[in-house]
Amino acid sequence: MNNKQKPYRLYLTEDQMPKQYYNLRADMKELPEPMLNPVTKKEVTVEDLLPIFCKELAKQELDNKTRYIDIPSEIREMYRIYRPSPLIRAYNLEKYLDTPAKIYYKFEGNNTSGSHKLNSAIAQVYYAKQEGIKHLTTETGAGQWGTALSEACSYFNIPLSVYMVKSSYEQKPFRKDIMRTFGADVIPSPSNTTEVGRKILKEHPNTTGSLGCAISEAVEKAVTTPNSKYVLGSVLNQVLLHQSIIGLECETAFKILDEYPDIIIGCAGGGSNLGGLIAPFMRDKIKGTHNPRIIAVEPASCPSLTRGKYTYDYCDTGKMTPIAKMYTLGCDFIPSANHAGGLRYHGMSPIISKLYYDGYMEAVSTIQTDVFKAAILFAQKETIFPAPESSHAIKVAIDEALKCKETGEEKTILFGLTGTGYFDMTAYSSYLDNTMSDYIPTDEELEKSFPNII
Amino acid sequence: MNNKQKPYRLYLTEDQMPKQYYNLRADMKELPEPMLNPVTKKEVTVEDLLPIFCKELAKQELDNKTRYIDIPSEIREMYRIYRPSPLIRAYNLEKYLDTPAKIYYKFEGNNTSGSHKLNSAIAQVYYAKQEGIKHLTTETGAGQWGTALSEACSYFNIPLSVYMVKSSYEQKPFRKDIMRTFGADVIPSPSNTTEVGRKILKEHPNTTGSLGCAISEAVEKAVTTPNSKYVLGSVLNQVLLHQSIIGLECETAFKILDEYPDIIIGCAGGGSNLGGLIAPFMRDKIKGTHNPRIIAVEPASCPSLTRGKYTYDYCDTGKMTPIAKMYTLGCDFIPSANHAGGLRYHGMSPIISKLYYDGYMEAVSTIQTDVFKAAILFAQKETIFPAPESSHAIKVAIDEALKCKETGEEKTILFGLTGTGYFDMTAYSSYLDNTMSDYIPTDEELEKSFPNII
Repeated sequence: MNNKQKPYRLYLTEDQMPKQYYNLRADMKELPEPMLNPVTKKEVTVEDLLPIFCKELAKQELDNKTRYIDIPSEIREMYRIYRPSPLIRAYNLEKYLDTPAKIYYKFEGNNTSGSHKLNSAIAQVYYAKQEGIKHLTTETGAGQWGTALSEACSYFNIPLSVYMVKSSYEQKPFRKDIMRTFGADVIPSPSNTTEVGRKILKEHPNTTGSLGCAISEAVEKAVTTPNSKYVLGSVLNQVLLHQSIIGLECETAFKILDEYPDIIIGCAGGGSNLGGLIAPFMRDKIKGTHNPRIIAVEPASCPSLTRGKYTYDYCDTGKMTPIAKMYTLGCDFIPSANHAGGLRYHGMSPIISKLYYDGYMEAVSTIQTDVFKAAILFAQKETIFPAPESSHAIKVAIDEALKCKETGEEKTILFGLTGTGYFDMTAYSSYLDNTMSDYIPTDEELEKSFPNII
Repeated sequence: MNNKQKPYRLYLTEDQMPKQYYNLRADMKELPEPMLNPVTKKEVTVEDLLPIFCKELAKQELDNKTRYIDIPSEIREMYRIYRPSPLIRAYNLEKYLDTPAKIYYKFEGNNTSGSHKLNSAIAQVYYAKQEGIKHLTTETGAGQWGTALSEACSYFNIPLSVYMVKSSYEQKPFRKDIMRTFGADVIPSPSNTTEVGRKILKEHPNTTGSLGCAISEAVEKAVTTPNSKYVLGSVLNQVLLHQSIIGLECETAFKILDEYPDIIIGCAGGGSNLGGLIAPFMRDKIKGTHNPRIIAVEPASCPSLTRGKYTYDYCDTGKMTPIAKMYTLGCDFIPSANHAGGLRYHGMSPIISKLYYDGYMEAVSTIQTDVFKAAILFAQKETIFPAPESSHAIKVAIDEALKCKETGEEKTILFGLTGTGYFDMTAYSSYLDNTMSDYIPTDEELEKSFPNII
């Protein structure tokens, strides 16, 4: 495609949409360490996972070999409601920055749930439905995953119980109500609907809840409800697998453009967006056919890659899930108030962790006032209103573009714009009103929660 | 295009985007009655309009003859950030309704401002900038227009003062803050920044403001600020002209699909979306080459077409603008609380009014609980979260599809999905909590405000 034909937003046709997920583990030179059973401390098996996950998802979780996994037509059917998502050239931002760099972003916020989470929600709900599951449970903090899952459950007609941390339930009534619009039963946690909830309420009647408690309730609800499973929106291998659709679409789009990104940037909470975005490019890097820089961006308030330890830890604060080797701040780490709620996870996807450990990628952290400054510049120039999570990637993309301005290099930058910020107006308001503060944990604070599991 | 090739969402390529606006007035057999100067009661001239509008917009307002008006490349440049907008086939809704009808919708909410208002905001700001205007003012109630204008002003780098009715300013802080994100100065009205605001505050220190007052302040601010103009987001002929891009894109898309809509449905407040959506189809109807049914949908609480009078009236409650012949409930009509804030206008576009009066289109009204019921069904099936305004059209599209189910007719239905509902969560919450009430004004109530201008 010559420059004159290149569009502002590149939409693939439906025919060009991926028909298979790409499993990066099949091409990794060294695999992530295996997950361990939290009781026996032995490598988990598919059977170990079946009380939590449906069969196909348990299989995907542990499958390190199958390079491509067919996307069932029913999943592709729902994908085509909002996919392919556009790859957009940030012409206006480039012009404003006066940079020779080309900045592209893959925009995953153009669906009602407002984020990339929907890509995996659809897959997880579909496989559960296929196996005769009649009910799903999950927990939600920031609310993006809960919203995406509500949408998918509504589409496939499966009842959903969402345990929402009580403080979020009360402070984010709109998030709650958009899930209710999609038919989900949203329960403030702790609640009277579970044993663990009743116990906590009895001991601490005025508690506003925690993510750990919400997970415990969601898991109990799944285990005690016939034909019910619990589902998760990040960290897991299966989630990164589903999110590979983001990277695969980017790969096709860059082939059409006859370009290749020199720098790939994604925000990193649990790693689901980042792992999906980079998958095919990381494959090229591992194989040595290309050598892009790949950068994970995390909040300075929750710096698992940049200041965490690479060790075995629980994936959840409730210590009920398998333990995984990953960069972690310790499953007891309580991140300070950070408006990018989706990036407040104590650990990091084992796949991303391993790739980072092996030197295939870089990581940087950034303070939130810098992130919102970048978000507002981006909104004004590109007229998309970004989620605070995504804005971490924007911040670093701008930094890299400005470096190109200094050196005169015409690098091609790609970043993942994971979602929109319509439900994060409170954070924007506090930035606009100059009442937002930054927080960086001290080494002593981090030391307190570093884990010592194995 | 054969059926197998037909996509779920049809995006035109950038090349297929319209390069000219279409002026329906040039093809109307009888023109709308001319606007009159409110003082002299004589037909307004371009000169009469210049204190309010910039020159090109004043010309467009009165131009009944030029069929096609070139869209300047700078405007098309900004359009291509979010256009072409998709024409979507509502397969899932059709399946759920079990209707033989084909339902298509043109989705105008896929931009940050969240509605079609951006189409005209961009044009108005561009023309103002071209003529050396250094500052713009407007008022906003529901906030969609203010948001769109903030986006356009940010892009073209023109300072904007938005007078926001104080009650909305306080009840909708998120709307206010998204405008601030785009750099607008948002002022709660009445304010101390104008003569009229100070006067009202002195007399009624506790008032929460009104649209009439906000308009008066915005006009005063424009008139007393050097090189400043006041801009409006609906009702005017120029606005319908800019919105014709919606209909033109639909026309091209239906040609690609090798189909033609039998029924075209749009929500109607001031008429900007409806007038734009129907423009090319109405032309065909006037010329007799096609004969689609065209249906305007308005809220039962503000029924200008279905229960108003076709007469001369002021376009604003402040009685400062030219008077126009239109369907109106009287410029003193105060609509009851209605969550579709964008449809609370007392009058109707003179073009739409004339076409309705001459029998080219139908109009229906609907109560708001029915509208929200349709909105939630639509969200669950189509996974787009619709604005309450747009949901008026959804309600009637569903009604028409169900009629087809009864008769077995395979009609093609097109409706305009003007925007998203992320800033209308309070209304959704009240519907979900069963606290939403319906209101239909009595004949006696309407009689009180019917105008008697000429």
